[in-house]
Amino acid sequence: MNATRLETLSEHACFGGRQGFYRHASSATGTAMRFALYTPPQAASGVVPVLWFLSGLTATEENFAIKAGAQRVAAELGLALVVPDTSPRGPDVPGDRDGNPDFGQGAGFYVDATEAPFAVNYRMYTYVTRELPAVIGAAFPVDLARQAISGHSMGGHGALTIALRNPGRFASVSAFAPIVAPAAVPWGQKALAGYLGADRARWRDHDACALIEDGHRVRELLVDQGTADPFLDAQLQPERLERACRSAAIPLQLRRQEGYDHGYYFVASFIEDHLRWHHARLTAPGAPI
Amino acid sequence: MNATRLETLSEHACFGGRQGFYRHASSATGTAMRFALYTPPQAASGVVPVLWFLSGLTATEENFAIKAGAQRVAAELGLALVVPDTSPRGPDVPGDRDGNPDFGQGAGFYVDATEAPFAVNYRMYTYVTRELPAVIGAAFPVDLARQAISGHSMGGHGALTIALRNPGRFASVSAFAPIVAPAAVPWGQKALAGYLGADRARWRDHDACALIEDGHRVRELLVDQGTADPFLDAQLQPERLERACRSAAIPLQLRRQEGYDHGYYFVASFIEDHLRWHHARLTAPGAPI
Repeated sequence: MNATRLETLSEHACFGGRQGFYRHASSATGTAMRFALYTPPQAASGVVPVLWFLSGLTATEENFAIKAGAQRVAAELGLALVVPDTSPRGPDVPGDRDGNPDFGQGAGFYVDATEAPFAVNYRMYTYVTRELPAVIGAAFPVDLARQAISGHSMGGHGALTIALRNPGRFASVSAFAPIVAPAAVPWGQKALAGYLGADRARWRDHDACALIEDGHRVRELLVDQGTADPFLDAQLQPERLERACRSAAIPLQLRRQEGYDHGYYFVASFIEDHLRWHHARLTAPGAPI
Repeated sequence: MNATRLETLSEHACFGGRQGFYRHASSATGTAMRFALYTPPQAASGVVPVLWFLSGLTATEENFAIKAGAQRVAAELGLALVVPDTSPRGPDVPGDRDGNPDFGQGAGFYVDATEAPFAVNYRMYTYVTRELPAVIGAAFPVDLARQAISGHSMGGHGALTIALRNPGRFASVSAFAPIVAPAAVPWGQKALAGYLGADRARWRDHDACALIEDGHRVRELLVDQGTADPFLDAQLQPERLERACRSAAIPLQLRRQEGYDHGYYFVASFIEDHLRWHHARLTAPGAPI
């Protein structure tokens, strides 16, 4: 990746650091991709650890930067925050035939599609796990030996599956209201069938509960889930993750937050806890996940 | 005002309190008006003081609630946050003939218009200073004997002018990148001429520097201003407020924040300081402004 091809869309002073928005030509997706990166004040004098935050359905790289209020704590702790977009975009990128927001543009589900017409552009797994780390590592003072990952809803699914499939890469993984078993719920079934085809055996690599059943492991998990989340019963079903973690002896801290819904007022209320939790693990001696 | 006519658009658990969005039929503007109200956890057991936040050009009641991250500190301090919309809205409400965002819908400038066709609906001064306080006082556990006011850009102008014209009402007033002398700058000249007519003598009641020159007083002021604000020289000119306050012996804490621009990454970075500053004055014994 030639770092000079990175285009700065805007940069804003923020809590002593800098909230930036950038664009680059992605070889993974074949499109121009945007991402957000917060660099804390500590990045002025050296490399800093980085927290990935993967966003949910319909979100772009902007939502978390605008709504979560995470920069304040990231500035205190010296954490970079990187937020990819949620899919390839553009007039030539296929989407949902009926224009629904749960498939296609804004709903990449962090997989590499194998099915036409999506396989050409919908390669978000490769983009997030291979291309974008190289891009930010070349252009910004981030330490790729110290990474953590979190996400919200579809992005919680992304964080959990990417951490489970990449042992040793992340010091810690957490999620807000994640889709923990996409193969078992309507959002995930539509996405995985559309991107990966009808053979459900191929879905297991993109289903956190199935990955755990199949022997993949993380050291521990922190998950927040609002009890007033309108998607709780039909799409999220955190009890499936509880069962999988219990069977696999993975310590899961699942916090049911009374009265909270699915939106960013929920994420903002608890993001500080997650950043401090990740920071403790990023700075602890010893092995990653 | 019949509080039963208040329509709840949405409510969200947020930092142990509740971020709500409401709509009501306004007699001041003759339109349906929306506002945002954050009630902190302390409101469950009694009335709480209230901070008004007036927003800038193009904003609605949503921007501050979504972008400033103020609820965290409001929850800690036990402050309600009320954010009005910035103008009347609707297909029958006149706006800028050329569709510019600096006049008309989204740009009410917190005045009562006297000029046709704006005088019918553009009565934001009456709405913010008389109608909306009665609405929230009747419907929510807020203590109208303990009010403070702040705002951003056009809303900073609103906060300063409303505090100067209503001695005794607010314990404290602050602003982010305010328009301090609208009669002297293009945004304000367009708005005041359009809403109030060509007679500049009638503009003075809606110009913070002119109000101070004419003898209006507040006890003290806190103002943050980014040095990288693209509107600094043409529209904001904080040195005019410095001169007016010096002449009037009003203590002004004008903090020039190095490298910050005009947006919400700037507001979010310093809102905690403002909330703590207001809270100290709301809870101090003694007289208001």
